[in-house]
Amino acid sequence: MTEPKHLFIPGPTNIPDRVRRSMNLAMEDIRAPDFPELTKPLFRDLKTVFKGENSEIFIFPSSGTGAWEAALTNTLSPGDKVIVASFGQFSMLWAKMCRDLGFDTEEWEVEWGEAFPVARLEERLTQSDAEDIKAVLVCQNETATGVTSDVAAVRRTLDAAGHPALLMVDGISSIASVEFRMDDWGVDMAIAGSQKGLMLPTGLSVLAVSQKALEASKTAQCRRSYFDLAWHAGANEQGYFPYTPATQLLRGLRTSLDIILEEGVENIWARHYRLAEGVRRAVHAWGLEYCARRPEIASDTVTGVMVPEGFDGAEVIKTAYAKYNTSFGAGLTKVAGKLFRIGHLGMLDEVKILSGIAAAEIAMRDCGIEIQAGSGVGAAIEYFRGADERPLASAAE
Amino acid sequence: MTEPKHLFIPGPTNIPDRVRRSMNLAMEDIRAPDFPELTKPLFRDLKTVFKGENSEIFIFPSSGTGAWEAALTNTLSPGDKVIVASFGQFSMLWAKMCRDLGFDTEEWEVEWGEAFPVARLEERLTQSDAEDIKAVLVCQNETATGVTSDVAAVRRTLDAAGHPALLMVDGISSIASVEFRMDDWGVDMAIAGSQKGLMLPTGLSVLAVSQKALEASKTAQCRRSYFDLAWHAGANEQGYFPYTPATQLLRGLRTSLDIILEEGVENIWARHYRLAEGVRRAVHAWGLEYCARRPEIASDTVTGVMVPEGFDGAEVIKTAYAKYNTSFGAGLTKVAGKLFRIGHLGMLDEVKILSGIAAAEIAMRDCGIEIQAGSGVGAAIEYFRGADERPLASAAE
Amino acid sequence: MTEPKHLFIPGPTNIPDRVRRSMNLAMEDIRAPDFPELTKPLFRDLKTVFKGENSEIFIFPSSGTGAWEAALTNTLSPGDKVIVASFGQFSMLWAKMCRDLGFDTEEWEVEWGEAFPVARLEERLTQSDAEDIKAVLVCQNETATGVTSDVAAVRRTLDAAGHPALLMVDGISSIASVEFRMDDWGVDMAIAGSQKGLMLPTGLSVLAVSQKALEASKTAQCRRSYFDLAWHAGANEQGYFPYTPATQLLRGLRTSLDIILEEGVENIWARHYRLAEGVRRAVHAWGLEYCARRPEIASDTVTGVMVPEGFDGAEVIKTAYAKYNTSFGAGLTKVAGKLFRIGHLGMLDEVKILSGIAAAEIAMRDCGIEIQAGSGVGAAIEYFRGADERPLASAAE
Amino acid sequence: MTEPKHLFIPGPTNIPDRVRRSMNLAMEDIRAPDFPELTKPLFRDLKTVFKGENSEIFIFPSSGTGAWEAALTNTLSPGDKVIVASFGQFSMLWAKMCRDLGFDTEEWEVEWGEAFPVARLEERLTQSDAEDIKAVLVCQNETATGVTSDVAAVRRTLDAAGHPALLMVDGISSIASVEFRMDDWGVDMAIAGSQKGLMLPTGLSVLAVSQKALEASKTAQCRRSYFDLAWHAGANEQGYFPYTPATQLLRGLRTSLDIILEEGVENIWARHYRLAEGVRRAVHAWGLEYCARRPEIASDTVTGVMVPEGFDGAEVIKTAYAKYNTSFGAGLTKVAGKLFRIGHLGMLDEVKILSGIAAAEIAMRDCGIEIQAGSGVGAAIEYFRGADERPLASAAE
Repeated sequence: MTEPKHLFIPGPTNIPDRVRRSMNLAMEDIRAPDFPELTKPLFRDLKTVFKGENSEIFIFPSSGTGAWEAALTNTLSPGDKVIVASFGQFSMLWAKMCRDLGFDTEEWEVEWGEAFPVARLEERLTQSDAEDIKAVLVCQNETATGVTSDVAAVRRTLDAAGHPALLMVDGISSIASVEFRMDDWGVDMAIAGSQKGLMLPTGLSVLAVSQKALEASKTAQCRRSYFDLAWHAGANEQGYFPYTPATQLLRGLRTSLDIILEEGVENIWARHYRLAEGVRRAVHAWGLEYCARRPEIASDTVTGVMVPEGFDGAEVIKTAYAKYNTSFGAGLTKVAGKLFRIGHLGMLDEVKILSGIAAAEIAMRDCGIEIQAGSGVGAAIEYFRGADERPLASAAE
Repeated sequence: MTEPKHLFIPGPTNIPDRVRRSMNLAMEDIRAPDFPELTKPLFRDLKTVFKGENSEIFIFPSSGTGAWEAALTNTLSPGDKVIVASFGQFSMLWAKMCRDLGFDTEEWEVEWGEAFPVARLEERLTQSDAEDIKAVLVCQNETATGVTSDVAAVRRTLDAAGHPALLMVDGISSIASVEFRMDDWGVDMAIAGSQKGLMLPTGLSVLAVSQKALEASKTAQCRRSYFDLAWHAGANEQGYFPYTPATQLLRGLRTSLDIILEEGVENIWARHYRLAEGVRRAVHAWGLEYCARRPEIASDTVTGVMVPEGFDGAEVIKTAYAKYNTSFGAGLTKVAGKLFRIGHLGMLDEVKILSGIAAAEIAMRDCGIEIQAGSGVGAAIEYFRGADERPLASAAE
Repeated sequence: MTEPKHLFIPGPTNIPDRVRRSMNLAMEDIRAPDFPELTKPLFRDLKTVFKGENSEIFIFPSSGTGAWEAALTNTLSPGDKVIVASFGQFSMLWAKMCRDLGFDTEEWEVEWGEAFPVARLEERLTQSDAEDIKAVLVCQNETATGVTSDVAAVRRTLDAAGHPALLMVDGISSIASVEFRMDDWGVDMAIAGSQKGLMLPTGLSVLAVSQKALEASKTAQCRRSYFDLAWHAGANEQGYFPYTPATQLLRGLRTSLDIILEEGVENIWARHYRLAEGVRRAVHAWGLEYCARRPEIASDTVTGVMVPEGFDGAEVIKTAYAKYNTSFGAGLTKVAGKLFRIGHLGMLDEVKILSGIAAAEIAMRDCGIEIQAGSGVGAAIEYFRGADERPLASAAE
Repeated sequence: MTEPKHLFIPGPTNIPDRVRRSMNLAMEDIRAPDFPELTKPLFRDLKTVFKGENSEIFIFPSSGTGAWEAALTNTLSPGDKVIVASFGQFSMLWAKMCRDLGFDTEEWEVEWGEAFPVARLEERLTQSDAEDIKAVLVCQNETATGVTSDVAAVRRTLDAAGHPALLMVDGISSIASVEFRMDDWGVDMAIAGSQKGLMLPTGLSVLAVSQKALEASKTAQCRRSYFDLAWHAGANEQGYFPYTPATQLLRGLRTSLDIILEEGVENIWARHYRLAEGVRRAVHAWGLEYCARRPEIASDTVTGVMVPEGFDGAEVIKTAYAKYNTSFGAGLTKVAGKLFRIGHLGMLDEVKILSGIAAAEIAMRDCGIEIQAGSGVGAAIEYFRGADERPLASAAE
């Protein structure tokens, strides 16, 4: 009878009741004269969330995957060289999309659990054909492994080399949750999805575009229509969209932005760090390890818990779902069975994440994994009690 | 931003999303020809929940307190003698109502933490004026202390003495949660409220009435109108109500009854026992005690956790609410400050109650109470893992 | 598939989506320290709606019928003489309640279609036993016939005679819709229900009590508990209630009060007049009559449309419901079959009421009533186009 | 205060409360083992709605515009010749998309108010280069003018010529509302959007694909990813999606399909005809004309009402919105100002459309257009009363 079930996947995330209420709507007139009173502030406030006052915001009725495509096809031409490091399911899929869309895709296969290899980029930029590189694609938060890459360092590396490549960032499971600074970090394309830090159902993707990328879009030769920025820009300027927008989600977005701005973007980053650190303390108390190879790249939105040799992460997930109404994220492809993932992003507080930790404990115990029941919860509690807000300066370090 | 907050009070309880959805309604025509298609099955299914096939069901737009009044004024005459044991806030208030309504109220003050004193009743019935007793009032589940009384034993005692008194049971925080058997136990008036085991918002009370009590209502001299059974019975027979019913809650009730019947009333009793026992194991692991004096009277819907000497239960509650978005029940009047209450009734499963235990742990630790963080959660987990469903035969013993 | 159906009954009324959204809620802690932040402003703003700054407001989890009882039992003693005029189903039922509760009930049977007979009261007060009269009960808006009584004139009459009787007003289908002035009119008890002008589901009743009536309640001898004002007053003062309140409706009330205050109480009265007048113009265009005997007593919240000789109003209602998904109000008891009622209160605008008029037309035509299809809609349209807001001074005259 | 406003645009349409309730949801686990229990029946039941048992169904998180792109890029190669007739805003935009995506686009500009020119196609297929034609694109229901094209005739024409071109149909504002027969009519690609006959919010597009088109997709050279059928097909087969699906809308779709199948697809077509004919009778009664040049091509989902010379359709729309809380559809580009559009699709019954007609009357009267107020409503009422269900055989003729 439990409904809703307990949801600890790295998206779709739990949505605040206030957001849910705001989507309990009759349909409305998308060409009404007062419709821009809804839409224009959305663009403005999304800039605040992206820390991208100099960017332009585009909102598509699509999943985040659609905005991956939008970023590529609006700024590149067929055959353009792109560099993309794959170190998890989602960075791997973005690389696949690059090939499918006909780009000269240089995919760097990196060990899963590691982050974007900045040093390798530095070296790569010294090679003779480096000038062919049109874009560098970075998955800021690899959801499959729970690893956060250093976007700012990528920009510094490009700048140090004086390289003009566009910096495209998949921020689907990071933006509005962990530190992201569109303008300061010189990001050209940043992609978010509604069902993560924006605490909405799936169905909207958001693309923030730098002025440099907008300029590039004017000459990019890829064929495009649904995701064409120019078509959107013309309508957006008036507060409308080139085709029917998803008004229910736009109304929900209004509320989620209100909630985000009330808490404060930096405070949200700090909260995600604190709650994530509680999970990591729990993993440590269990005597287990998380998938991220090094603490400094451990994600604040999802933790991949490595199950001990001889056990199957999929069994933990199956047990949690079947017996305890609880969803964890699965290990995908290369890490299938080796881990289960605890999502900890969006609307979340101490008690909620403690219940996720407890659910993991009972499911692991049922699967025969030798952890001390309650140890993870206890470690997280003691951490939460003492935790100061982490200084913001180090939020992404 | 957390919404909803974490709710561990003994009512209003958490409501299933399916119930909540069913109340997301426009208003409807309460005299429509098909309105009885909604209402008639409600009466039928409530009999199943009350285990009272021989009873008549009445539904009032009121809180449970209203049905307290309905039970009394429909079957008694001014000055009638009633016996009511008070061993907590709610049994005490029912006694107060008896006095306010003008009955000759014999209130037995029993130590809080104890249950209805069956032996005292046995003795009382032997006294010369015992024949004056018109009704015996039993609070099956004293919400303020977390104590369950033995209703069946009260009936056995009355029967053994051949006494004709009406047996009235406050089942507000027990019915649809712990064992209750209207017919088998010979209950004459049983009272439930929507916001407890029925998993609805507050606003409906349900009164199940035995044929004997219905007979008594024909001659009872108390003045009454809003709660008059005869007025309701006439309209109810056609599937309507004598005044505007609360249709939103009736629609919700339809859904909650569907959910209850799908799980099965006996299974719900067993689940409440199991989850309650997890809480009691946690209390034990903390080295604390619960308010109920003896394990066999400990309530399966709410546990009063006694805080150690020198600490204030109200501080735990305040901390949980202010810092952790979590509500526990307060200690009322005689036990104010001495305990905090964990509600565990209605829609509830292992992970949800584990989060309540964890919330209690972090709040107690913040208040300086020396428990081992995680110990309660761990004890409950290990209990839940091994717990068989308790044999139904002993469910209320 | 049409849902919601078209609702033109005089309550429950259509509720604004904004209100509906605000009730799409999880349950909450009714003893939370911030709960009074919700409740206290409700009392304050209801005073504004009742135009009763000097009154005290009580909110019960009950239908309006419960507040009828509350008004009587809190201020009167058994056997007290009350005067109540019955000129429709609801004034008749209030009189019945007076008898059931044991008052010396002087029921004046007035022709249905007429209003409270002020002249008769004037005459009555000159009789020798007039001093026995403890209360005069006025149904401001008789929902069964669509007639509005002149409450201010009743007060003037009492005052002219220097008579101390309490003036109790059933404002269930008038308050928050048509002119009502608690303080100015010297009303002692005013009763409203949530499902009418307050645009909420059924389940809350509101009672405004004058200082004089509060004083009377201190000595009134009727037995009471659930509706006892003193019990409520003590808890209300702190922002709480003596028993579990219906939080879902209280949250909805917050929103409906916001909406009401945004539009302005006087503007709401004017809107109800304008829309009601459109309905009356439609009735005239059809060549039919409405139940109210004189235009000046025609209700602005409901119109009883008299069907021609040889036709059955119940058939019109049945046809509208079965074929056109539309609910009208039925003719009750004395006027059964002679009329059908169009409710026009609460959330309502021109287009909505035009659809009600059109629905009446198609249903009447189906029943063979010889009206010109479209004539009522046309008459209302032309009226609405030219209608000025009625001067407020005459709003209730 | 009116909320929701009155919505008579040709999409987004009014959604049944039952659908709305079903979307009042917490988020769920999109990789749960029981997720396919939701998704697989959706594909099955959509085939029933499309009358396309031999087709494959694809569901995208996008607006209908996205499925336009999906149809083209999955089956064609860059530079392929397509024929598209433009006779309204939406057929014109589809032609524009063809050019943007790089196809050799033969756009036939047809007078607005006319339908797809079947005779011209017949002639065109006799030309020497006809073999280059890879696809013929037909907008079944041109929403901008209220014109329905004869899809079956296009297929007959292609077959008569033995031409292998793919037949692509924009059914966004027709499918689930007016007759559409995927299999019988030999349609290769049929496109629907959630916010029209499916009575959902915007955000899902549905693409039905014939086996022939699926075969073509295997060799089509257009670059694609987000809308790639093969990527979807692989995941769909297991009941999942290649990227996060819009679960809230999928749950809503389940309910809307339930509603559609309960009413019956053919009955829905008949209802749309009947209600549309009522609107046309109203237009005639007003002495005005509708945009469709001939009755046999008048759309059953939207009617463009031509305003008389000297009046501006935009003023009618503005007046309806500002004064009467009512939305009508605007005249777009070539017909801007010349008409306003009444949408009449989705959840709709007689009383609802009568209110739309009444709203049009009051707004036109306010703008000084000399119609008889009530005449349209009256004509529609008399038509509805006598209307038999139109024989299905002629439903799209």
